[in-house]
Amino acid sequence: MCGNTFGRVFRLTTFGESHGPGLGGVVDGCPAGMDLSEEDIQKELNKRRPGSHVGSTSRVERDRVRILSGVFEGRTTGTPIGFYIENEDQRPKDYSHIKDIFRPGHADFTYHAKYGIRDYRGGGRASGRETVCRVVGGAIAQKFLSSRGIEIVGYTREFGGIAAEVIAPQTAEELPFFAPDPSVIDLWKQRVEEVKKEGDSIGGIVEVQAMGVPPGLGEPVFDKLDARLAYALMGVGAVKAVEIGVGVEAAQLKGSENNDYMTKEGFVSNNAGGILGGISSGQPIVVRAAIKPIPSISIPQRTINTRGQEVSLQIKGRHDVSAIPRIVPVIKAMVALTLADMYLLQFGYQTLRSEPS
Amino acid sequence: MCGNTFGRVFRLTTFGESHGPGLGGVVDGCPAGMDLSEEDIQKELNKRRPGSHVGSTSRVERDRVRILSGVFEGRTTGTPIGFYIENEDQRPKDYSHIKDIFRPGHADFTYHAKYGIRDYRGGGRASGRETVCRVVGGAIAQKFLSSRGIEIVGYTREFGGIAAEVIAPQTAEELPFFAPDPSVIDLWKQRVEEVKKEGDSIGGIVEVQAMGVPPGLGEPVFDKLDARLAYALMGVGAVKAVEIGVGVEAAQLKGSENNDYMTKEGFVSNNAGGILGGISSGQPIVVRAAIKPIPSISIPQRTINTRGQEVSLQIKGRHDVSAIPRIVPVIKAMVALTLADMYLLQFGYQTLRSEPS
Amino acid sequence: MCGNTFGRVFRLTTFGESHGPGLGGVVDGCPAGMDLSEEDIQKELNKRRPGSHVGSTSRVERDRVRILSGVFEGRTTGTPIGFYIENEDQRPKDYSHIKDIFRPGHADFTYHAKYGIRDYRGGGRASGRETVCRVVGGAIAQKFLSSRGIEIVGYTREFGGIAAEVIAPQTAEELPFFAPDPSVIDLWKQRVEEVKKEGDSIGGIVEVQAMGVPPGLGEPVFDKLDARLAYALMGVGAVKAVEIGVGVEAAQLKGSENNDYMTKEGFVSNNAGGILGGISSGQPIVVRAAIKPIPSISIPQRTINTRGQEVSLQIKGRHDVSAIPRIVPVIKAMVALTLADMYLLQFGYQTLRSEPS
Amino acid sequence: MCGNTFGRVFRLTTFGESHGPGLGGVVDGCPAGMDLSEEDIQKELNKRRPGSHVGSTSRVERDRVRILSGVFEGRTTGTPIGFYIENEDQRPKDYSHIKDIFRPGHADFTYHAKYGIRDYRGGGRASGRETVCRVVGGAIAQKFLSSRGIEIVGYTREFGGIAAEVIAPQTAEELPFFAPDPSVIDLWKQRVEEVKKEGDSIGGIVEVQAMGVPPGLGEPVFDKLDARLAYALMGVGAVKAVEIGVGVEAAQLKGSENNDYMTKEGFVSNNAGGILGGISSGQPIVVRAAIKPIPSISIPQRTINTRGQEVSLQIKGRHDVSAIPRIVPVIKAMVALTLADMYLLQFGYQTLRSEPS
Repeated sequence: MCGNTFGRVFRLTTFGESHGPGLGGVVDGCPAGMDLSEEDIQKELNKRRPGSHVGSTSRVERDRVRILSGVFEGRTTGTPIGFYIENEDQRPKDYSHIKDIFRPGHADFTYHAKYGIRDYRGGGRASGRETVCRVVGGAIAQKFLSSRGIEIVGYTREFGGIAAEVIAPQTAEELPFFAPDPSVIDLWKQRVEEVKKEGDSIGGIVEVQAMGVPPGLGEPVFDKLDARLAYALMGVGAVKAVEIGVGVEAAQLKGSENNDYMTKEGFVSNNAGGILGGISSGQPIVVRAAIKPIPSISIPQRTINTRGQEVSLQIKGRHDVSAIPRIVPVIKAMVALTLADMYLLQFGYQTLRSEPS
Repeated sequence: MCGNTFGRVFRLTTFGESHGPGLGGVVDGCPAGMDLSEEDIQKELNKRRPGSHVGSTSRVERDRVRILSGVFEGRTTGTPIGFYIENEDQRPKDYSHIKDIFRPGHADFTYHAKYGIRDYRGGGRASGRETVCRVVGGAIAQKFLSSRGIEIVGYTREFGGIAAEVIAPQTAEELPFFAPDPSVIDLWKQRVEEVKKEGDSIGGIVEVQAMGVPPGLGEPVFDKLDARLAYALMGVGAVKAVEIGVGVEAAQLKGSENNDYMTKEGFVSNNAGGILGGISSGQPIVVRAAIKPIPSISIPQRTINTRGQEVSLQIKGRHDVSAIPRIVPVIKAMVALTLADMYLLQFGYQTLRSEPS
Repeated sequence: MCGNTFGRVFRLTTFGESHGPGLGGVVDGCPAGMDLSEEDIQKELNKRRPGSHVGSTSRVERDRVRILSGVFEGRTTGTPIGFYIENEDQRPKDYSHIKDIFRPGHADFTYHAKYGIRDYRGGGRASGRETVCRVVGGAIAQKFLSSRGIEIVGYTREFGGIAAEVIAPQTAEELPFFAPDPSVIDLWKQRVEEVKKEGDSIGGIVEVQAMGVPPGLGEPVFDKLDARLAYALMGVGAVKAVEIGVGVEAAQLKGSENNDYMTKEGFVSNNAGGILGGISSGQPIVVRAAIKPIPSISIPQRTINTRGQEVSLQIKGRHDVSAIPRIVPVIKAMVALTLADMYLLQFGYQTLRSEPS
Repeated sequence: MCGNTFGRVFRLTTFGESHGPGLGGVVDGCPAGMDLSEEDIQKELNKRRPGSHVGSTSRVERDRVRILSGVFEGRTTGTPIGFYIENEDQRPKDYSHIKDIFRPGHADFTYHAKYGIRDYRGGGRASGRETVCRVVGGAIAQKFLSSRGIEIVGYTREFGGIAAEVIAPQTAEELPFFAPDPSVIDLWKQRVEEVKKEGDSIGGIVEVQAMGVPPGLGEPVFDKLDARLAYALMGVGAVKAVEIGVGVEAAQLKGSENNDYMTKEGFVSNNAGGILGGISSGQPIVVRAAIKPIPSISIPQRTINTRGQEVSLQIKGRHDVSAIPRIVPVIKAMVALTLADMYLLQFGYQTLRSEPS
């Protein structure tokens, strides 16, 4: 598994399985001299915590992050920031019933095919639990970006087929489901209840905006800013599509409709989502990720086991009805990690120190 | 511009501007002992050649590729394959009228912001002409993949808002617009004529399928196969969204609808697009790219110049009405480059030679 | 600090400071299905442990490694192997006397210049203590290489100016100083005593041999196997020179003396050190690292402080007299990490699984 | 061959065989807005040109470099700089006599083992001719570094066993053999004549100094500046050892002798070679490479052919007696490429543009 490091200058490397002792990682390339506390990170971690959202699993993990290096007397030293989150809720659950079964929609079959061995307890490395480490890295990235005037907001744009009508990003993080539109919350709650009763699951669309990004980030031709963002977001387990600006809709627009014209005051629209030719334009970066319904449902499902026999699988226990809203801070984190990396590539990772003159 | 190399094992590095002496690049990591001729590459290049398609520009570039290294007596030697395509049609055109103008929808503004200098002739490095090098790299990748039983097909799924009803991938490459459905061709031709008259442009949706991909390609967690594909495709200039399998639609499905169940015969559906947990499952890989309308239109547009003054811009000359169909072989090339890279990462780039026992 | 990951396929990422809570890291790319226990690693760690060698510091660290992920039921799963070593001996020592002083020969000045802030306690990240993580990674690499018939031995070739006359690598690891020649041990002990009395320090030359390396490892032209080895070894704090085969002596040989001739039985000599044109030849790989004397001496030294004032520094406390022999397993580890990486690049990191036919 | 790109931010990718149509490459990451002409590069290329040195081969290659992209109106645009050097002297020589023979000291055997096929004409990719592309990349790097006040000089320190007594770097490039000491030139000429008569070859030691390097370059812990330099230099075909500062000699010094003390005026010595803890200290960077004698000699040699049969080989034709002095600009180029890369990593590759405030 060598695809386990994200970024080239601001880098996140992670490890950890769902039911092992814990998860952790290393953040390299964070500039020196930045204030950083465990609380800065914990704040973001709490946003993805199970139990803190409507419709989420009752597994209780406090997800307390511990910083193990790279911070001295409250400030980053420029050396790698090691971190660790213990798995507190490791009740000796019995996984023997799914040990040899390929759960539909899960990575059981492909991990088995690739590695010939897998930690079947709760999905192992393929569990959504892996994303806690992304949130830690993203929190550190956001702290850095914030010092540069860049702010990132994430919210649920559509949930179980029901779209938010109004997009008010700034208040979304305070609302259930990270809803950008308070009026949609009740509809969404209702949708969750319905689906829960059916023993089924739903997905939705998450949108992230980054404000204050200076023009010039992004590296033509392969490492365009949008290419790096697509890579970052599609690397999150549940994501099946990534859109920039108008996204898929661009395929149906004419050039005269899609082009963002400029006046003295700047761009008059932002169909491009803040990126032209792979380089940030100074407008807000707008990206969207389509989230599939989580594959664990309590409805009985047909599948096979490792011996190729057909079996019926009924997943018991309480599961989240959707990766939304807990995935919102994860998507946000991936955007932050991407922007921090591209920022430092452009301006120097030692950017808090001045260049010799 | 340091984002100019694609891949980690099978690698493509490119150079070249629209109106410079030529374009070229280097393919590293292609296994030794593979038959390779200029004709193998030329075949693919011809598919994206201007003038060979309905509605395409009349600029005539024969786009003759020349192999400069890495092939000896008709076979690859394992050493880097250098290649070059001369720009033949370098008529001393006058670009002075757009020299200082930021063309809407183009990268003029962002290149100016990032580099402070740009080759304004025909878009320079940001020109779609850059993609010839991707097609060269992709042709070599396809040749390699083909030797491993992997075949890739690309086609236009939707064009100017009109979708193909039937998807018959295998014959698409022989038809105008790379149409997967012969019955849609006349509608598309008509659409092109309308838009051409308006002086406007259109986009569409391109789909690529890869058959015969073995299970096991893709590296959790950040370098998932879908993440690398999204990166590859979003790095193509005109792409605004990338979808895997059911893509955006997944957001509206329930888990019971979206999960691909398995029987003894294998998966009964392919909503996942051949990838689970970021690893290929053995099913066909299915990816889609939403292509924006090309920004060069002959309708007058509002914009500003480098001095911040508002100007009206009317782009003259004959332009393509759409990046489709010429972009189809480019998207296909990016899929091939990604798969070759992930294949060699998994099985060893020296895969034609056996491991010591 | 973004130079914190070693390798491209078999990868080691580390973190940790001398006097922080602990040190750790992540090993990515280790093939699945390999037996691995903490004891496998501990064995190597114990070889570099302080207190276990003549002339080494009395700081007592048990250096117990803990595996946090990537191993399930005693076997690697192919997922990242997280590990952690707690710093047990964190007595609240007083470092205030060196807080603002640039110790000669140490990295104090350059860390200050680069980062503007540094963890001054025991050298922080620049401490030799950082190398425990290299030994962990190297132990895992050696376990893998061993399964492929590759064995690595390390020994001290010269110490404090006194060279071993005979080189018997196989028994060296059992002897004091990792001496390849039992007859030199008393001379070396005596040298240590002399230097200790003087309050000074010494260096030496460490040699590593890798037997059983198949021909074909190494990537022309920049990533030659010798280039990667030089990079690996020179990245260890105390190393000032790296030699391959005859090394520096090659500069004084004639071609007729230096060329390794071949007969039916193979090469008749190994001046090349097992590498020709950057590719392994099948002969033993032979590399040497020149180790500088450790900079911490108890003789008073002239230096300046962060305010530019001249001061006299006398480092108290017990220090190692030399990085030798504790550095021997570190050099060995770097060779192992390099070979594992180049092996998997050549033969595929998923090498325990077979390629589809 | 996937080890064919050097650097992470300032990157050189090359291609080309000794007797193919030509050699070339791509320089990525060179900051925009820098004056650059073919003449800037040609100047450095001429220094390694065959025929321009005492004792060098009579093969006449004008080695005219052609810039194919990335420079517009005399200035770099920030886009990749493609370049090409045609092989002019491709006389249809007969190589059939060495086609199946493994020349001692050459890479014939290992290329055969790795790739199973090789371009046997003049060594193909393993030829010293490959280094022309390094010199091109190095010339561009030097031009950039020079704009930042960094100057690099290279010279021969020892040749055929005869060391220069005095080191006067600044005038060395104007003298035969890049001699840093005019008084040694006659001795070296005499040595060349002797060896030529014997049909043998010699090596030597090349030293490079970089003046004006700001403190702070280099990335702990694996990508130390000295580690990257060692990697760069050991990647040149003929190099068998790399030393930093006092180098191998450090192994015999005591700490009190080796430590560079500081006063208000700065360091009082430079045993460290300008690097402490892997980070530049502001002192001159001093590196040395030990060059082996070239393997092509006209004395008959024992070897085997591809069928394993023992044969006697006598290499005819005129060959260089040594890689020195032609290798001096190559070593210099590798130092320049390394420093440019580390500089841009530290200060941002877009360093000529200012960071937003």
